[in-house]
Amino acid sequence: MAGELEKSLLNQHKEKHFTSGEIVRDIIIGVSDGLTVPFALAAGLSGANASSAIILTAGVAEVAAGAISMGLGGYLAAKSEADHYKRELQREQDEIIAVPDTEAAEVAEILSEYGVQPHEYTPVVNALRKNPQAWLDFMMKFELGLEKPDPKRAVKSAFTIAISYIVGGVVPLIPYMFIPIAKKAVLASVVLTLIALMIFGYAKGYFTGNKPVRSALETAFIGAIASAAAFGMAKALQG
Amino acid sequence: MAGELEKSLLNQHKEKHFTSGEIVRDIIIGVSDGLTVPFALAAGLSGANASSAIILTAGVAEVAAGAISMGLGGYLAAKSEADHYKRELQREQDEIIAVPDTEAAEVAEILSEYGVQPHEYTPVVNALRKNPQAWLDFMMKFELGLEKPDPKRAVKSAFTIAISYIVGGVVPLIPYMFIPIAKKAVLASVVLTLIALMIFGYAKGYFTGNKPVRSALETAFIGAIASAAAFGMAKALQG
Repeated sequence: MAGELEKSLLNQHKEKHFTSGEIVRDIIIGVSDGLTVPFALAAGLSGANASSAIILTAGVAEVAAGAISMGLGGYLAAKSEADHYKRELQREQDEIIAVPDTEAAEVAEILSEYGVQPHEYTPVVNALRKNPQAWLDFMMKFELGLEKPDPKRAVKSAFTIAISYIVGGVVPLIPYMFIPIAKKAVLASVVLTLIALMIFGYAKGYFTGNKPVRSALETAFIGAIASAAAFGMAKALQG
Repeated sequence: MAGELEKSLLNQHKEKHFTSGEIVRDIIIGVSDGLTVPFALAAGLSGANASSAIILTAGVAEVAAGAISMGLGGYLAAKSEADHYKRELQREQDEIIAVPDTEAAEVAEILSEYGVQPHEYTPVVNALRKNPQAWLDFMMKFELGLEKPDPKRAVKSAFTIAISYIVGGVVPLIPYMFIPIAKKAVLASVVLTLIALMIFGYAKGYFTGNKPVRSALETAFIGAIASAAAFGMAKALQG
């Protein structure tokens, strides 16, 4: 009996579908660092008298490392969330079957936090008790605040972040591919990257519902600060 | 009258306090990339015949740039979430005052998704209507799934991530400070960083409730892949 109930609960548990908001968020994560760190690294090294060849090598190596670290890191984080959700789902289900009165009391407590009186919430609690599938969904969402993750999300997320990082990272490095004197290449890189940062910042603001112009300026500002810091550190070490 | 209600709602809106879980998450974010990318960059450049001096310069510049990009980026993201929350709070409050019947219908819809019948949820809906503050809290949490962010969280988050990145990034670079021949320094860096990655991975698993040993191996694996990619790209460009 309990086995049937378990199987039924797990099979019918509602799936949450993700919107394109997740993809946009991953692109923002990848491009934000991708446009900033390789740019700053290259600009910093140009101040330390490195050649365009060395700078390009360092830049490309950093883009490869960064894309993998962020991509695989994002994948593991998403998988970890999925495993966490599965464990919590199993535990809630066990509690609903083993200690239903305790779980019912938790529902009552959740509703009473909103000033709802016992005689007002008791019909709701009883309705949930008669519908274990809905009860489980309710506990997952309202007690634990967890949504069922899409199993394919982890892989999609990893690739989106990694590719975004690579696309972002290549932009500042392009001048170093064509201008062998680093101190000249860096000027082109600064112009190219600042423009890219402002366009990206504007788009980011537009998609996240924040003021696009302010977002453009903030994003360019981070790039400027990061490259100034990299420049300063490189000069301090190499003179 | 509406003004008094508004002021009262906004002043009394419950605050959500964050647990140390936020700090642990930020440390994990910073150290994960900090231990991986500078390590991989340095290892990659050592394969391209760069000196320890150049590698140290590139590594330190990258750590500075990465800490700022992630720190400031994290700060802006947290502020953006806080602004989003404020806008949504204002909008829900306006709707509660202007179109209460529509909002009441939304509460009914939320509860009916869990199989609760109208005669069962109507007392709850009415209870909320009599208590605008609780009603607002309910809509924010159960319709929009938003929690009130701590205003100081953005700054704390930025510093935690940035400092974690720096601490993580310095570890792989230490050998290059003392061993001038890069091809020798890299061996020490690999050993030191692999140990650090495994210790960090183990701790990460422990704190996030995942198998610590598996987490240790996964974390070290990412470091290995990232450095192999960086090494490969650097060799391809410099030979």
